[in-house]
Amino acid sequence: MVMTDIATRVWNHGWRLDPVVRSLLDTDFYKLLMVQMIREVHPDVRATFAVINRSKSVRLAEVIDEGELRAQLDHARTVGFSKQELIWLAGNSFYGVERMFAPGFIDWLSRFRLPDYELSVRDGQYELHFDGPWAETSLWEIPALAILNELRARAALRDHGRFALDVTYARAKARLWDKVERLRTLPDLVLSDFGTRRRHGFLWQRWCVEALQEGLGSRFVGTSNVLLAMQAGVEAIGTNAHELPMVEAALSDDDAGIAAAPYRVLEEWRRHYGGNLLIALPDAFGTTAFLRNAPHWLADWTGFRPDSMPPIEGGEQILRWWQEQGVDPRSKLLIFSDGMDVDSILKTYQHFHGRVRMSFGWGTNLTNDFRGCDPLGGEGLEPISLVCKVISANGRPAVKLSDNPAKATGDPSDIARYLRIFGEGGRVASPVAV
Amino acid sequence: MVMTDIATRVWNHGWRLDPVVRSLLDTDFYKLLMVQMIREVHPDVRATFAVINRSKSVRLAEVIDEGELRAQLDHARTVGFSKQELIWLAGNSFYGVERMFAPGFIDWLSRFRLPDYELSVRDGQYELHFDGPWAETSLWEIPALAILNELRARAALRDHGRFALDVTYARAKARLWDKVERLRTLPDLVLSDFGTRRRHGFLWQRWCVEALQEGLGSRFVGTSNVLLAMQAGVEAIGTNAHELPMVEAALSDDDAGIAAAPYRVLEEWRRHYGGNLLIALPDAFGTTAFLRNAPHWLADWTGFRPDSMPPIEGGEQILRWWQEQGVDPRSKLLIFSDGMDVDSILKTYQHFHGRVRMSFGWGTNLTNDFRGCDPLGGEGLEPISLVCKVISANGRPAVKLSDNPAKATGDPSDIARYLRIFGEGGRVASPVAV
Repeated sequence: MVMTDIATRVWNHGWRLDPVVRSLLDTDFYKLLMVQMIREVHPDVRATFAVINRSKSVRLAEVIDEGELRAQLDHARTVGFSKQELIWLAGNSFYGVERMFAPGFIDWLSRFRLPDYELSVRDGQYELHFDGPWAETSLWEIPALAILNELRARAALRDHGRFALDVTYARAKARLWDKVERLRTLPDLVLSDFGTRRRHGFLWQRWCVEALQEGLGSRFVGTSNVLLAMQAGVEAIGTNAHELPMVEAALSDDDAGIAAAPYRVLEEWRRHYGGNLLIALPDAFGTTAFLRNAPHWLADWTGFRPDSMPPIEGGEQILRWWQEQGVDPRSKLLIFSDGMDVDSILKTYQHFHGRVRMSFGWGTNLTNDFRGCDPLGGEGLEPISLVCKVISANGRPAVKLSDNPAKATGDPSDIARYLRIFGEGGRVASPVAV
Repeated sequence: MVMTDIATRVWNHGWRLDPVVRSLLDTDFYKLLMVQMIREVHPDVRATFAVINRSKSVRLAEVIDEGELRAQLDHARTVGFSKQELIWLAGNSFYGVERMFAPGFIDWLSRFRLPDYELSVRDGQYELHFDGPWAETSLWEIPALAILNELRARAALRDHGRFALDVTYARAKARLWDKVERLRTLPDLVLSDFGTRRRHGFLWQRWCVEALQEGLGSRFVGTSNVLLAMQAGVEAIGTNAHELPMVEAALSDDDAGIAAAPYRVLEEWRRHYGGNLLIALPDAFGTTAFLRNAPHWLADWTGFRPDSMPPIEGGEQILRWWQEQGVDPRSKLLIFSDGMDVDSILKTYQHFHGRVRMSFGWGTNLTNDFRGCDPLGGEGLEPISLVCKVISANGRPAVKLSDNPAKATGDPSDIARYLRIFGEGGRVASPVAV
């Protein structure tokens, strides 16, 4: 006879909602590193972030109920960092460094709540904006994306019985484990989970992290998700993102200031962090332009994270640059993180093996690959390309060019101005799947 | 925070074992039909059943702990039919017939316990014998096989962590659902679960039955497992087995009596049951021999269950026989149940579609297909060919010839005698996988 836990059942009656965001640590690690620096370097800058759905054919406002979305966003605004989480942030070492976060920053976090949001609907899509102090709005990016992705998955599974759900997850688990078995043929693989923002759901991401721990052992080095890193006892992974050069450029007074912005940001980063955190993201305004003018001291950094050029082509450009600077790439690190999946990881690994150190940040295709898993055949679980980008700083437009014009953001006239400054060199359009 | 159900946890502390057999209804339906008849026709016959592992390379006594096996067999002997189960047996209709089981039989069941067993080890295999009144020892077949198969699966999974177990079952579920999706392309499919004896475990068989209910709808007509039929609200399926002609032949005084035994059994069956239960199993001593001498009245029966000849060949022989008797096969039924899997079901269905009614009894490849599912790569989950056969009746040897010599049972000299009586015609050796 099944013993029903009546107390838990009765407790469940009272739920107003099943929260997507239950902890502010359920975010990407690099956000904490960046926000600590932003608070020191640009305490007064206001920045607006906006959600952009690149997969236009998926009309999100017709898929996700607006009331449900507001309830989840409102709930996220009630969540604060818990005492246990703050003690862990202060006491844990990250990338081998003790006291990565200063007491003043921890104190600020202890009072932090996500700021307000603006939500409207246009042409079947949600317009979701976050406006306020940069250090505050920046922290919306990950929870906003996780909420939208998880609500979309919930909507896709709403009419599924227990059995169809069981088959869906069985297939997704079998799929992921087959990927794990292919990946563990690579003896020197270094891989981490970068899939928080695009995940199917929090519990599924946790299962994925456990799968990588179990299946890849020491080849799995950690997760970008701070909460999961704490819970699973693995490293929190991540350094910096496009928003730093984008805001730095937006704040510049002239074209020369914009052209120098990517390097100014790295100087600031170098003042705050060291060692393995010295990873440069070269593609905000095009990798080719970035490398052409990159200062020699950047060759002393640990490595690069090419993020929008095809991985082999992007890696080869960076290797050539290191060689021009008189540096042996075998001592350097490349972190590949743009829409990777097992095939591209295997191909990239084999291409560069022995020539450079490599690490892979595996995102959407790790934590949201339910393609074909739905026994009822719906397409609501196919991953989409949803991002949350800074669009302005102190009222000035923020622009991203990227190596792939399909990933550029900003007003067309602003993009044109940035293209005049940085040039078109090396940019090639390719479809953005995830 | 997870609420732990402390009462259940504490209750679990006290388990001496996790029983494989928790109900005597957890058996195949045809056992109840046969035993009711045996008690009337042969109340004084003693029969010995023996477990035979045809997969010699799997040394079961080295895989399954003897103490554990004894504990499970002993536990099964403590289980009786519950009042609820007996009321259901008496009150439910089977094959559209009310009161299938007479009050006297229900009364006998209410006092029934499984008789004693003899267990020893020889050459790495268990010798497991059941000796006693035929009606009692016959009821050991299914629980004995279910216990051995489940203990083997438990041994194979003993050193698996929670994660490896999760992946194992995810893969098996995904596998089964892929099979279901292939099967539901057949509009006139009629399929039932025959997998009790060879199942991975009871809970897994239940999942399989739920999968077929959910995925095949009305094309899934029921299960041979009486307990699952009751729980899932589907039909209990089955008619009769080889033990009837085997014991009838063993009791015969001369060769002529042996030759006539298969038909005497069917006459007895016809006196007890009617309608859709009039299914003949032709292969105990070879289908070709059986059909050569089969009486004309058998053409009035509902159909045949070919069980050891390749399905298309066996079906064609039976179709020819019906045509010789002047009967249109389109009004008749063939039940295929010998090691079927999706490929052979599809092939057989397409071959006979429109020429005869068909039904498929799906066994081992339904309830125990974990091939390649173990992430730790062990082979302990590969299905084996384990049977429990009557080996003697009233001290006389029981023999099965089968259409496939690899499935014959009995002493070589007794097999030779039976072959002289029935002939070798139509018998072809083929490997027995399950």
